[in-house]
Amino acid sequence: MTDRPGFQRAYSPEHKARRAADLMAAARTLAAREGVRGVTLTAIARHAGVHVSAVRRYYASREEILLNLAEEGYDGWSRAVATRLTGRAGLDSVELARTLVATLAERPLFCDLLTHVTLSLEREVAYERVRAFKRAAGEAVGVLTDTVAAASALDRAAARELITGTIALTAPLWQAGHPGDVLTRLYREEPDMAHVGIDFEPALTRLLAALCDGLTGDRSPLETAEREA
Amino acid sequence: MTDRPGFQRAYSPEHKARRAADLMAAARTLAAREGVRGVTLTAIARHAGVHVSAVRRYYASREEILLNLAEEGYDGWSRAVATRLTGRAGLDSVELARTLVATLAERPLFCDLLTHVTLSLEREVAYERVRAFKRAAGEAVGVLTDTVAAASALDRAAARELITGTIALTAPLWQAGHPGDVLTRLYREEPDMAHVGIDFEPALTRLLAALCDGLTGDRSPLETAEREA
Repeated sequence: MTDRPGFQRAYSPEHKARRAADLMAAARTLAAREGVRGVTLTAIARHAGVHVSAVRRYYASREEILLNLAEEGYDGWSRAVATRLTGRAGLDSVELARTLVATLAERPLFCDLLTHVTLSLEREVAYERVRAFKRAAGEAVGVLTDTVAAASALDRAAARELITGTIALTAPLWQAGHPGDVLTRLYREEPDMAHVGIDFEPALTRLLAALCDGLTGDRSPLETAEREA
Repeated sequence: MTDRPGFQRAYSPEHKARRAADLMAAARTLAAREGVRGVTLTAIARHAGVHVSAVRRYYASREEILLNLAEEGYDGWSRAVATRLTGRAGLDSVELARTLVATLAERPLFCDLLTHVTLSLEREVAYERVRAFKRAAGEAVGVLTDTVAAASALDRAAARELITGTIALTAPLWQAGHPGDVLTRLYREEPDMAHVGIDFEPALTRLLAALCDGLTGDRSPLETAEREA
């Protein structure tokens, strides 16, 4: 961590706010274009036209910037679901699953980030920043839960389970549904292996519709007990 | 990639087979103890008592070794489920979920590896090796599907969906259920945040039991159509 000013130093508060926003925009563009895995602090700095040491005046690390993007993603996704479902009622499991999947599919960067959040970002970013992220993500999950409960036959506890399941299923299914060169070649060259591939939207829609059906039905004693525990 | 022999060079085929097995054992021990994220090729070499250049005579990379461990994991998990369910019939959703979760919880290294397989291992390991892994994983999923279909009311297509959902849910829920120092401190210091934490086994059991209930019930036109597509 260096404190010496990078070139193109931002002097006024307005300059500094714009510089911070430019860096987030650069990270957003690079992560969306090349995938979260490939984003480096150096690439973010270059794309924003500043020296990497200047980036560190605004953000502690690549991971902190990516966690900021994940926080934006939770906020944007919860607002999109609320916009589509507010005022709706009695949605069936397929309509609900389609709405959740459509709003996620419109946010590939968020879907990509979900795996990185639990695997690395929450482990590598500083305590205060992770705490703020968890509060923001928790608020988004609360909005999603209330919106889903109001628009469907799910009670609040079941709606919360559906949202937990949606976030959990989205992370690996998005990665599996967006294979790298090796698997793309495998599915192309060996048709008998192609069925192993995941088609993100239909696979997630089927699983969420089934999960929603199961959460709507009578609870088994175990589930009731564990939910109430 | 160097071709000069490391010290303690293995000369006979027996020596070479033992050396390769020792390296896998070292990786297994380190990954289980420190988590997959922290395992390096250097640490594997040190733990096995060889120079890193000697490791490269057996395995191309850290990722190839980890993919081998994931392949072992799929084989071991599918055998464990088959052992417990063969001969059983008419299991309800909770019994089925408990069996799947118990056999996974006994394999923390496999649960940890699942996230790395889709995020990085399948993207970074050489084509031939990934192809062999996908064939082995596909066979394991076939065994799991047949076993679950025979032991429950699920048809084969629904059993395949349940296994896909089980593998997908396990990866992020295991990571979330095994937080690093930052989240552990957050959950300890801020009780109102503790509920955000995931308890791996009960959370996965609840979601899989509900998914199984939903897959057992009548299919919606969408799900039938998409499954048949």
